[in-house]
Amino acid sequence: MILTVTPNPAVDLTWHVDALQPGATHRVPTGASRAGGKGLNVARVLHATGHDVLAVATAGGATGDELRADLEASGVPHRLVPTRAATRRTVAIVDERAGDTSILNEFGASLASAEARALADAAAELGGEASAVAISGSLPPGFGRSKLGALVERLVDAGVPVVVDTSGPGILAAASAGATALKPNREELAAATGLDDPLDGARTLLAGGARVVVVSLGADGLLVVGRDGAPVRGRLPRVLHGNATGAGDAVVAAIAVSLADGDDLWSDTDAAADARARLARRATAWSASAVLMPLAGELSPDHAALADEVDITTIDEDEDEDAE
Amino acid sequence: MILTVTPNPAVDLTWHVDALQPGATHRVPTGASRAGGKGLNVARVLHATGHDVLAVATAGGATGDELRADLEASGVPHRLVPTRAATRRTVAIVDERAGDTSILNEFGASLASAEARALADAAAELGGEASAVAISGSLPPGFGRSKLGALVERLVDAGVPVVVDTSGPGILAAASAGATALKPNREELAAATGLDDPLDGARTLLAGGARVVVVSLGADGLLVVGRDGAPVRGRLPRVLHGNATGAGDAVVAAIAVSLADGDDLWSDTDAAADARARLARRATAWSASAVLMPLAGELSPDHAALADEVDITTIDEDEDEDAE
Repeated sequence: MILTVTPNPAVDLTWHVDALQPGATHRVPTGASRAGGKGLNVARVLHATGHDVLAVATAGGATGDELRADLEASGVPHRLVPTRAATRRTVAIVDERAGDTSILNEFGASLASAEARALADAAAELGGEASAVAISGSLPPGFGRSKLGALVERLVDAGVPVVVDTSGPGILAAASAGATALKPNREELAAATGLDDPLDGARTLLAGGARVVVVSLGADGLLVVGRDGAPVRGRLPRVLHGNATGAGDAVVAAIAVSLADGDDLWSDTDAAADARARLARRATAWSASAVLMPLAGELSPDHAALADEVDITTIDEDEDEDAE
Repeated sequence: MILTVTPNPAVDLTWHVDALQPGATHRVPTGASRAGGKGLNVARVLHATGHDVLAVATAGGATGDELRADLEASGVPHRLVPTRAATRRTVAIVDERAGDTSILNEFGASLASAEARALADAAAELGGEASAVAISGSLPPGFGRSKLGALVERLVDAGVPVVVDTSGPGILAAASAGATALKPNREELAAATGLDDPLDGARTLLAGGARVVVVSLGADGLLVVGRDGAPVRGRLPRVLHGNATGAGDAVVAAIAVSLADGDDLWSDTDAAADARARLARRATAWSASAVLMPLAGELSPDHAALADEVDITTIDEDEDEDAE
């Protein structure tokens, strides 16, 4: 079983308008309401691809009831840690004419210290029985980088591989806690390390304590950089148009599957090089399949065919070292 | 007891952003969620001013649960008719920098015919024990103008005075069903009658069957036009800045109080002229007090003092008739 942990889930609300006019009143069709948060999207992808998954998240208030009801309807097994504060909301207003989306993300209410402890304990205990754990999304007040780091350490000490996808100081905390894998995107990596080059940024996180870093690069694909061995790049040779929300979560799901399979993604061996290439191919295909779907957490059934299209390139380390 | 009827209630969600940038992602504080819909705002005003009130509305789904919870917290007595479809939402995004608000109003799901009948029966039966009934807001699919007209007729036939505040064809249907009072704003009146002049528009609705029409004119105050006798205008001699949402609902609440007190607002007698002037003064003051408050359905405690400031003008009918 793969465990996903979502410390700051949300009820995602989406409305479609013909054309958003700031300051005006718009009559709109009924919006969609859905359990959201990166870790829940990872869980949906794993569930949809036939993997045994359990989603741990928090839930409180009327919005927490909505989150629970939607998870139950989705069939994704879950364990929700109750919170006194209501689960946060996010708002997406899709402008059909402009073709863009305006998003409001609530920060999320603070977790009480007993609630943060209950979340960490649930994740550590259930994670102890898991083949891999994915911790995803923003960190709410009350469950910051030190609590994230402590949870990663507990899991790694118990021998469970952990992939972390967060932004800000949580990335560095997860690295120094020894997270098996990290999945920043280019901007998150640059913000966390201060380095513009994705390979340089990835190496900083590896030096900090992570074993493998997967950097998602949007339409440019992704980079799998292990502690040893040559980095691998996966890239679809054509640009897909669609909804990029959830593409990174599909990458995290692919990493979790690789870790759960016991793959070594960080050694300088042929087997590890093969595992990095397999992950790069699958993660690129799943990410592209997520872009083709309207909702985060869904994969297009084309993902198997897309995997055949992915270009895999091994980056010549010597050449790269010369450039450093 | 005054009964308010809200055929198309909503859960009103409000978020504040520093500056709304279409297409961008904004981090925002937790939004507010509140039972909304014009009839519920009327009920809040009546409850806040110490009047015995009962609010009838529909409620369904998770949003219906939110509506119910908020009404219970507010202390406004209510009777909710269950619907299979979820209660609609409205979204308000307040742009702090621009000082304006972008609004999304969901149409509302259709009422099944049994649900529409249950709503009409609840309103007619509870209205039979009321001293006045206020029916407010938009009409959902499945509860259109003919059902509104039939409900007004049932109540008026039972001897209960009824004030209706809606837009579109519902205004004319309510007039021809013999609604005691109508409360359009200038734009709604012009759209319903095709007449730009508020006095001409009001007379069309009176000819259609209503007894008194109160036209709200925003910062220009309001007009009370009875079937007979001289029209009266109420106006605050200074402009108030604030939140105009709910100002019209405060006017409806004042009309309902006047009707519940047994006031004759439509005859050519001194007593009726006094009643029209009293209503114009109170409705103008309550409307202004609503503008001063952040949330619809609330009145500033200044409303008693504001009432003393209101200018009351009786419109010379002969002069007006000459102009026709």
